[in-house]
Amino acid sequence: MIEQHLFLRTLAGEQTERPPVWFMRQAGRYLPDYMKLKEKYSFFERVQNPDLAREITVMPVDQIGVDAAILFSDILVIAQSLGLKVDMVQGRGPVLETARTQAEVDRLSVEATQDFFKYANPAIKAVKEGLDNRVPLIGFAGSPWTLLCYIVQGQGSKDFGEAKKFIINEPLRAKLLLEKITEATIEYLNIQVDAGCDALQIFDSWGGMLSPEMYSEFSLPYLQRIMAATRERVPIILFAKGAWYALKELQETGAAALGLSWTTPASFARKICGPETVLQGNLDPSILLAKPAAVKIATTKMIDQFGRGKHIVNLGHGVLPQTSVDSARAFVDAAKSYRY
Amino acid sequence: MIEQHLFLRTLAGEQTERPPVWFMRQAGRYLPDYMKLKEKYSFFERVQNPDLAREITVMPVDQIGVDAAILFSDILVIAQSLGLKVDMVQGRGPVLETARTQAEVDRLSVEATQDFFKYANPAIKAVKEGLDNRVPLIGFAGSPWTLLCYIVQGQGSKDFGEAKKFIINEPLRAKLLLEKITEATIEYLNIQVDAGCDALQIFDSWGGMLSPEMYSEFSLPYLQRIMAATRERVPIILFAKGAWYALKELQETGAAALGLSWTTPASFARKICGPETVLQGNLDPSILLAKPAAVKIATTKMIDQFGRGKHIVNLGHGVLPQTSVDSARAFVDAAKSYRY
Repeated sequence: MIEQHLFLRTLAGEQTERPPVWFMRQAGRYLPDYMKLKEKYSFFERVQNPDLAREITVMPVDQIGVDAAILFSDILVIAQSLGLKVDMVQGRGPVLETARTQAEVDRLSVEATQDFFKYANPAIKAVKEGLDNRVPLIGFAGSPWTLLCYIVQGQGSKDFGEAKKFIINEPLRAKLLLEKITEATIEYLNIQVDAGCDALQIFDSWGGMLSPEMYSEFSLPYLQRIMAATRERVPIILFAKGAWYALKELQETGAAALGLSWTTPASFARKICGPETVLQGNLDPSILLAKPAAVKIATTKMIDQFGRGKHIVNLGHGVLPQTSVDSARAFVDAAKSYRY
Repeated sequence: MIEQHLFLRTLAGEQTERPPVWFMRQAGRYLPDYMKLKEKYSFFERVQNPDLAREITVMPVDQIGVDAAILFSDILVIAQSLGLKVDMVQGRGPVLETARTQAEVDRLSVEATQDFFKYANPAIKAVKEGLDNRVPLIGFAGSPWTLLCYIVQGQGSKDFGEAKKFIINEPLRAKLLLEKITEATIEYLNIQVDAGCDALQIFDSWGGMLSPEMYSEFSLPYLQRIMAATRERVPIILFAKGAWYALKELQETGAAALGLSWTTPASFARKICGPETVLQGNLDPSILLAKPAAVKIATTKMIDQFGRGKHIVNLGHGVLPQTSVDSARAFVDAAKSYRY
């Protein structure tokens, strides 16, 4: 039974024999077989076609040996579901139609959410079939603040200056936008659970770009709403990259586990959240650029810092595209050969 | 007398009537008169020519009303002094000749440091003349780790993956490189003080990209050496962007003040460093993209968080190029009209 899987037992707070391991962006980018599919099919074909979603999501389970699969998709599907055009441009990343004016924000609609995500059920069912209960499946969504970053900026950014300018100059309009993203996100997460996801992760990838004060106003309340609406259904991992200053508040949302970036020491998180909170992370993804032997040593040292149990091994952010498969495997093997 | 200036009295730990204010990258980028000079002269002409250095360094004192000037230069002059070619490429930022192999690192020489920086004395003397004791002059350098980032990566980067790969795969070679940068930096800081700089700031701009463990190994020891070699001469502000986890160690280097990024709450820094440590910062530079009225409110609120005194108002990172002069002025005015 999948409930007895190491990953879900850890999320339930059980003391396990070793930490489970998976990593963000494990399906994609650095895998040669994924790159072949990327050449043949568009990003959204790969997400929406059940056969492709299955093949890509299952790939790191077969090839790298991770203890959990994460649905192949992108946080920007929520922007699409709200009616915005999203393109993945080679060498540049996502390019989005923006919503900044009152009229543009008003026009965004949550009504089409169910209809937009009708691809998700067959895709997730196909993935579950491909996994055949070997490992659990994680569904996911971005945080409303992180989605707003892209919807206002229109693309990735070092500082998301346009997004910040928007929330400061137009806080009411920003909150309307965050409300709409929140509603669509709750619907989408429920669709993923209905279709068979065993756990969820919320990515507040750009949370740590906000000051603590702005975080409390523009990110946290929306995470709290999403958590309240979904936390009874499956365990949820909340990952707010860089938002170390909000760990206590994030814990209080009822997350089953908190993701840490590599600049947040395990000892600090244990002090703030207590010894019973399950923590996930937190190797610097850049370390996976090093030789496999160095990766193995660094990973073991990182696991040591979390103490005995209540820990899911992961990176502190998505795996870098230039990572070698051997180094990714060394990371996973270090966790799998660890014994408490 | 310049020693009686608000900025230096604050750095000396005195209780002052209001916080002094200056901001990182205040000379350049967002100033229309600077942009005109940028069109006419190369970056290194602007740094090395005494008349241009004076005009640019003094500009924000005259036009924005800051309480301290910072020498117009760039942290990459240290890479040049070691023998590497550095270009500032329009729209792309700095592009450097790299040093990665053992032979390339061996070839870097600190012997030419005095000779390379012979432009600095006349430039600083001209700046001091232009300032005419109205405000103190801050000299600066990058941290050895931050310099290594550029010297290994060859350009700016979101993650400095090549630099991290280098220090993990080749720690001994990395330490040799850090040693050389440290030696050149100490010489250069002494040249700046000899020429008349009243204070110094060390920019560990990419310190916060390292895990606490790697920070202790690859950044902190070199900062400690630089501080020990120069702290008796003038007060030094140590700014390690994002390295909140090392605040205690940074304080113990003997810095006169610690710079904070905007994600490090004043209350946290006060708790770690005690009420007597002078703190500098920490408004999110993106807030200066907002309307002047919003900037003024946010700045005043930020100052409130630092309590009464022991505070230098600054941003949490360099001012963004798209900042309006009016918003920069609103930031400075908020500090200048504040009363404890």
